[in-house]
Amino acid sequence: MKKEEIWKTAITKVEPNKLLLRGYRIDELMGNITFAQAIFLTIKGELPSEKEAKMIDAMLVSSVDHGVTPPSCLAARTIASTGAPLNTAVAGGILAISKYHGGAIEDSMKVIKEAVMRKKEMNKTGTEIATIIIKEYKEKNKRLPGLGHRIHTKDPRTIKLFQIASDLGIAGEYVEMAKAIEVGIEKSIGRRLPINVDGAIAALLCEMDFPPELANGFFIMARISGLITHVYEERTRMKPMRYINSKDHEYDGMPERKLIIKGAN
Amino acid sequence: MKKEEIWKTAITKVEPNKLLLRGYRIDELMGNITFAQAIFLTIKGELPSEKEAKMIDAMLVSSVDHGVTPPSCLAARTIASTGAPLNTAVAGGILAISKYHGGAIEDSMKVIKEAVMRKKEMNKTGTEIATIIIKEYKEKNKRLPGLGHRIHTKDPRTIKLFQIASDLGIAGEYVEMAKAIEVGIEKSIGRRLPINVDGAIAALLCEMDFPPELANGFFIMARISGLITHVYEERTRMKPMRYINSKDHEYDGMPERKLIIKGAN
Amino acid sequence: MKKEEIWKTAITKVEPNKLLLRGYRIDELMGNITFAQAIFLTIKGELPSEKEAKMIDAMLVSSVDHGVTPPSCLAARTIASTGAPLNTAVAGGILAISKYHGGAIEDSMKVIKEAVMRKKEMNKTGTEIATIIIKEYKEKNKRLPGLGHRIHTKDPRTIKLFQIASDLGIAGEYVEMAKAIEVGIEKSIGRRLPINVDGAIAALLCEMDFPPELANGFFIMARISGLITHVYEERTRMKPMRYINSKDHEYDGMPERKLIIKGAN
Amino acid sequence: MKKEEIWKTAITKVEPNKLLLRGYRIDELMGNITFAQAIFLTIKGELPSEKEAKMIDAMLVSSVDHGVTPPSCLAARTIASTGAPLNTAVAGGILAISKYHGGAIEDSMKVIKEAVMRKKEMNKTGTEIATIIIKEYKEKNKRLPGLGHRIHTKDPRTIKLFQIASDLGIAGEYVEMAKAIEVGIEKSIGRRLPINVDGAIAALLCEMDFPPELANGFFIMARISGLITHVYEERTRMKPMRYINSKDHEYDGMPERKLIIKGAN
Repeated sequence: MKKEEIWKTAITKVEPNKLLLRGYRIDELMGNITFAQAIFLTIKGELPSEKEAKMIDAMLVSSVDHGVTPPSCLAARTIASTGAPLNTAVAGGILAISKYHGGAIEDSMKVIKEAVMRKKEMNKTGTEIATIIIKEYKEKNKRLPGLGHRIHTKDPRTIKLFQIASDLGIAGEYVEMAKAIEVGIEKSIGRRLPINVDGAIAALLCEMDFPPELANGFFIMARISGLITHVYEERTRMKPMRYINSKDHEYDGMPERKLIIKGAN
Repeated sequence: MKKEEIWKTAITKVEPNKLLLRGYRIDELMGNITFAQAIFLTIKGELPSEKEAKMIDAMLVSSVDHGVTPPSCLAARTIASTGAPLNTAVAGGILAISKYHGGAIEDSMKVIKEAVMRKKEMNKTGTEIATIIIKEYKEKNKRLPGLGHRIHTKDPRTIKLFQIASDLGIAGEYVEMAKAIEVGIEKSIGRRLPINVDGAIAALLCEMDFPPELANGFFIMARISGLITHVYEERTRMKPMRYINSKDHEYDGMPERKLIIKGAN
Repeated sequence: MKKEEIWKTAITKVEPNKLLLRGYRIDELMGNITFAQAIFLTIKGELPSEKEAKMIDAMLVSSVDHGVTPPSCLAARTIASTGAPLNTAVAGGILAISKYHGGAIEDSMKVIKEAVMRKKEMNKTGTEIATIIIKEYKEKNKRLPGLGHRIHTKDPRTIKLFQIASDLGIAGEYVEMAKAIEVGIEKSIGRRLPINVDGAIAALLCEMDFPPELANGFFIMARISGLITHVYEERTRMKPMRYINSKDHEYDGMPERKLIIKGAN
Repeated sequence: MKKEEIWKTAITKVEPNKLLLRGYRIDELMGNITFAQAIFLTIKGELPSEKEAKMIDAMLVSSVDHGVTPPSCLAARTIASTGAPLNTAVAGGILAISKYHGGAIEDSMKVIKEAVMRKKEMNKTGTEIATIIIKEYKEKNKRLPGLGHRIHTKDPRTIKLFQIASDLGIAGEYVEMAKAIEVGIEKSIGRRLPINVDGAIAALLCEMDFPPELANGFFIMARISGLITHVYEERTRMKPMRYINSKDHEYDGMPERKLIIKGAN
């Protein structure tokens, strides 16, 4: 075998009866860390701090599902309605997590990262940089990503994510910049176009130093439990090959109920 | 609009600025429950008990990654090597989580569930039922699912999963039956064919009353962080369009290290 | 390298500057055979007869597109509307070509093949065997595949396929059996449930001795040009992230026009 | 229902018992046009001329398969080896037809189209424009697409495509430009980097006035019969879950044979 054919991987070492994930024995991780900590470890290569673990949990919880209207849900249900296996329908849903659906997290991270970099280089305030960037986008007739939502005007997920980030001390210059852009937009167009959940997650992934190229992965990981549940519901409650119109649905699940938390989680 | 076109969903209620997941406000869940608890809630419709939450965490952690040899990883890396976007490559990996790769969880759940049912109906011991089932499979020249592994003879994940299940008091008649089958197989073929991680997860999903049709979903949810990381590694460390031979790889990541846990997680 | 690692393929021999498809030089095939002939050669290993080539062409032409309502089209358009690349959206459409959408061709082939086999073994007429099979399905409360359509009561594609098959001398015992089942069903349930395009293609694939396991492949090959065109139309005529309701569309293409054929093709 | 929800499609008009593809009755097309003509009609909206039909046939035939090494084939086989359905494995293969695999057709079309446009605008010769473009790419340290192949130094498919295009009178300014770039590259780097099959198809799609955004679709349509055949071969000749190393294969199909054409096709 030629030498150059050997290729390297730094994720998991697999030996008979022994598995090392980023150096840790998987059987030692099991029972000792949460799934969200394992996700962070797998992707980043290091365990999260306690605060980062809480932040990641909140981020993933925020995006597990958003009902039947997102394209990922409709693609998955449409495929499921043809009798396709669970994994096939879920994969179809993931194919729809693209530029305009979930993709704003990556775009938003790039905008925020660049803005913070320019702020430092140019020795300006966040507000000044935000004004410059908004002007540039306006001139190019482009929309800034991570702002506005087709349903929510005041997305409860954004508010809570920023509150948790603030409580944990994770919110820093990236969150500040995202908010400066939000304020700047309002000044520029005369109405609020609030940071949406994509924009909020983007700012927080910047704070935890994830590369923008992985942003889409967080949305996929979060939403996959929702997709699985929608596919299962489609197969167990609906007739195959039905015409699926997202606007004609009705929620008949649990009415609103209060969360009762016993002790720390 | 005709009445019959209205269709029902019981997962998430979406209103402007308000999201109810299975009845709970998502912004109330955020910061208060873990991602694994949210997954359980999304799929099952109810929050897990504290013990179930720990069990689900351990199950998902056990399967986040298994290195570069699984077909899901190779499919994802092969697609990534052509320059495809992250979501596309990950979806390709999920397409490979099928009958012979992950699929054993579902098959195994069906075998264990049926065995426990027959045990009750026929008023026999687990050992007796296991003997009957093994004989039936032998006669049909079929292999029982969830046993044996192409790499591990004593899978550390199985051992740890059963230990945690036992500590939490979750291991019951289904785990017992899975073990009865393992013992029966050894008697029948004269050598150990130990329960693999698929078989162990199958028994535990039975204990927590999940339908077998969702089994594959747990494997997909767990493995997706691994797939995302492999795709990212492929894109950042490897040349596009390389010939990927899974046998020619070498691990160059973190050497083995000890997990240090500060306090309860 | 261990001997057993060498694996065999009989489709294409690739050498530097030379490509043999099933033994023929690809550059010799180019310009001398049609795409449909090349498809037949690739799959079957031998070139079709002139009559088979015409039959395959007609089959593939019959299924290139069926407008916006099929799930494969809706899945592809839904994914395309998120800004996904062409290949991703098309692959999503193919994921929907499953059990209830296209899958009837394979099921139907199995029914027709078994019926013809039983006819020979039991030395009965097609009508007698059809009656037996219809009774068996009725008792199991199962529907025979390849009959009826949610839009067409007299599918023009079926009529034309059978006419061409008859003209070419390709229609034989399998087509006869499909028709015997259609007649038997009408007698049994008191109304016509005509052979649909899936059932017709199934009978013709039996006549040309294709394995049922490949049936779905013919539908995929035919429909892919339709899927590509729908994805392109979605991207060039529609706004991203729109709500796609298949019932709310209107055809604004070419009005009906007559085909003018100059000479034989 | 609000007016604005009505959306338009110009591909296929579906009425009960009547199907119009781009204005033509599908049952009238069947038996009268070839599959390749139907593909052209579906995508372009008009039937091809006789010459264009021959050109499209040759293009599609050239790319039906390229053995087991392309990533699309390996992704499809890897997925098939897990027991996934045919459509799932084929879709996985299509996910790999991306930037570096097939994607060169689109990139190449853009380069050639722009070059021809600049040639006209700047009133220069093809050779002059080629020299300018090669210099620009060199300065940006970028590779021109559609040139060179990891296996073929003199791709027989390119030679034949250009010969057929020349015989049919289809080769015009775009083919000329592609060749000018090929010559210019040789002058610039001192060795031949011949136009590959992607580059040749690109030039011909330009000649027939297809948009670059559809280029990938032609490769997908051509290769899908190959993917289907590889998936079928994997499932019928190989063991599930085998380690697939593309370099360890051996061709055991038909030895080279001569094509015998009876009359014109």
